[in-house]
Amino acid sequence: MTSPLSAPYDNLSPVVQAAYRARGAAAEIAPLPRSVKDDALLAIADALEVRTREIVEANAEDIAKAREAGTSESIVDRLTLTPERVRAIASDVRDVVALPDPVGEVVRGSTLPNGIDLRQVRVPLGVVGIIYEARPNVTVDAAALCLKSGNAVLLRGSSSAYASNTALVRVLRDAVGGAGLPADAVQLVPGESRDSVQELMRARGLVDVLIPRGGASLIKTVVEQSTVPVIETGTGNCHVYVDADADLDMAVDILINSKAQRPSVCNAAETLLVHQDIAEAFVPRALDALAEAGVTVHADERILSYADGSKATVVPATPEDWETEYLSYDIAAAVVDSLDKAVEHIRLWTSGHTEAIVTTSQQAARRFTQLVDSTTVAVNASTRFTDGGQFGFGAEIGISTQKLHARGPMGLPELTSTKYIVTGDGHTRG
Amino acid sequence: MTSPLSAPYDNLSPVVQAAYRARGAAAEIAPLPRSVKDDALLAIADALEVRTREIVEANAEDIAKAREAGTSESIVDRLTLTPERVRAIASDVRDVVALPDPVGEVVRGSTLPNGIDLRQVRVPLGVVGIIYEARPNVTVDAAALCLKSGNAVLLRGSSSAYASNTALVRVLRDAVGGAGLPADAVQLVPGESRDSVQELMRARGLVDVLIPRGGASLIKTVVEQSTVPVIETGTGNCHVYVDADADLDMAVDILINSKAQRPSVCNAAETLLVHQDIAEAFVPRALDALAEAGVTVHADERILSYADGSKATVVPATPEDWETEYLSYDIAAAVVDSLDKAVEHIRLWTSGHTEAIVTTSQQAARRFTQLVDSTTVAVNASTRFTDGGQFGFGAEIGISTQKLHARGPMGLPELTSTKYIVTGDGHTRG
Repeated sequence: MTSPLSAPYDNLSPVVQAAYRARGAAAEIAPLPRSVKDDALLAIADALEVRTREIVEANAEDIAKAREAGTSESIVDRLTLTPERVRAIASDVRDVVALPDPVGEVVRGSTLPNGIDLRQVRVPLGVVGIIYEARPNVTVDAAALCLKSGNAVLLRGSSSAYASNTALVRVLRDAVGGAGLPADAVQLVPGESRDSVQELMRARGLVDVLIPRGGASLIKTVVEQSTVPVIETGTGNCHVYVDADADLDMAVDILINSKAQRPSVCNAAETLLVHQDIAEAFVPRALDALAEAGVTVHADERILSYADGSKATVVPATPEDWETEYLSYDIAAAVVDSLDKAVEHIRLWTSGHTEAIVTTSQQAARRFTQLVDSTTVAVNASTRFTDGGQFGFGAEIGISTQKLHARGPMGLPELTSTKYIVTGDGHTRG
Repeated sequence: MTSPLSAPYDNLSPVVQAAYRARGAAAEIAPLPRSVKDDALLAIADALEVRTREIVEANAEDIAKAREAGTSESIVDRLTLTPERVRAIASDVRDVVALPDPVGEVVRGSTLPNGIDLRQVRVPLGVVGIIYEARPNVTVDAAALCLKSGNAVLLRGSSSAYASNTALVRVLRDAVGGAGLPADAVQLVPGESRDSVQELMRARGLVDVLIPRGGASLIKTVVEQSTVPVIETGTGNCHVYVDADADLDMAVDILINSKAQRPSVCNAAETLLVHQDIAEAFVPRALDALAEAGVTVHADERILSYADGSKATVVPATPEDWETEYLSYDIAAAVVDSLDKAVEHIRLWTSGHTEAIVTTSQQAARRFTQLVDSTTVAVNASTRFTDGGQFGFGAEIGISTQKLHARGPMGLPELTSTKYIVTGDGHTRG
């Protein structure tokens, strides 16, 4: 691919100019040692606390606009920054400081038969573009993770958070610049219109990766239209399968935790599958527990046959239910003839995020984990554990549901590429 | 993304139906242990030898067509299969048998603070699509590597090799089926027209990755139009930089080996950069050696100033020369003011494949390897070493010049993804 860098700078659009500046900044920060990057992150955390008022005031503009537009209170809540929340964001940045620097790690190394020393080392990706919705804390999280991994970041937040993000990025850039690093390592993509997203998606050669975070339609648009490599994140049509050999108490606990502990997130369960041999014993208990948790059940005929006399709200499932990510107090449910039929159902309908099996059978656990092809397979554990924090990665830039580059929760190493260093002593190829 | 699997099968195009069958085969071979896959590969190697005549006869059709169409003899040579070449291809398959199986490798594992066991294990990608030109040996190489790594493969070769590829794939499928594996794990994409490439590029959800191998325009088309994730391969505008502190004999050897040992390949050098402090001593020697190797030099003004009295063919460089991948006995050449200026030139013009520095200075070597952002940086070694075989990977499916997923020569591990296995004992999230 020809580099867009060879085009005359002044003719470029503001988005491409921003990407151009990001590329320059990326080259500067890529070789920096950890201590320099950590100092900049600490400066960011301090600046967020010192300038909280400025951030909260800008946020108030966004909230006023959202209320005027009749936005739901739950979305307004996600948009809201309070002094406490800003302090929590600053604390998250300090957590990133504590994480090891992935850059420079020797991933693979050997001396080749001809005496050449071969080393594969981690390097930053370069320029990372993040396209995200609503929550302004992502602005700071993403910037901190990208800086720590030696990348420049182009932030394209929701227009509903434009004032908040503008204030946050101003604070971030001042802190980065004050720490002696190029401020252009952190930039808000100019422009509130959708054109700026389009330009970002076409900036191949300038932007190394785009990570869309948000609803299914945003992710679909980016995946389909971007020529910049994309890491698809998030959509989670997660399944809980209760095997013929299952501890019923455990199965109820895992089902309710997976579905109802926080239904609005991508690792919440959306479908329950029950082995036919245990259906009579398990389904009535499951329906009662789901009723108690306030969950509506979208049931196949066999589940429906156990619904009489249950306190649960049970409605007949349509085919659409099998592929729906409700993100609400709803669950699809079906009885399956066997573990293999459960796997077949999952492979057909899943978004490939997380699937759980509850079983006491070692053989069943082994077969399920082998055959299910999703980012995460949980055995006797809730689907809710698929999370960078829970996995001990310290932080998370998103959860990849694709197979290339990274799969599952992505921490700092997933924001790197590698390069090979070949060191010889005048070696030529015969 | 919604699965195209839910569409009625009969309404699908032949290419999508092939992808659908590949998906089914992929699910079957993914959990197979190494011995089963190796047996199938040995059956392939044997079948290629037993059925050589059938393959060579089909190849003769392609050659006749190519000659009729006035194809150059060098391309006809690349297209040609002789009994010896078929034996060599079978031998390559046996080499793949000897390689370790990447599937099942535990990449990362720990027990989390709450007692959950977390394991990240390598799994096949699923369905790999390869779009490639001319050489029919790629058909067998790609199939062998994909099978060994538990993937199904959709092969879309050049229409100029259609008869050869059809015969080869028939032999491969018979051998795979005879070994008890699903023959649909290896398929030639139906249809010789460009529509089949288009359909492959839109088969997101069915095909997990597309790897284009061939000329720059093929790769550009796939990168720009595919919604299936792509691994960009190959284009190599490689540089040799001769530092102020360089052993001149070594510099000449590395330059000539990098440029002229095999100019038609992606890891051959296309540009020479010389530090100004060593130009007077080095450039005349370099021009003589290049002349002897039959290389035309596209020179900047400072290189031109040394050309008087040289035996070399030296022509003035135009800006296009800095970005040209000649793949021929041509090289661009310039004098630079400093190592940093060399890096700047490289970062602006390189395709990001391989860059070499010749230097006796540890400091220069360190700075060059840190600042150059390409798949491979060679210190006192030829650019020609960037190769899966040379790197000891045993085989190569291509050389990635992008940063996501894989970068540089790609062997078997690069044909895998990972999944996380979370094993608890009824763990729920608090």
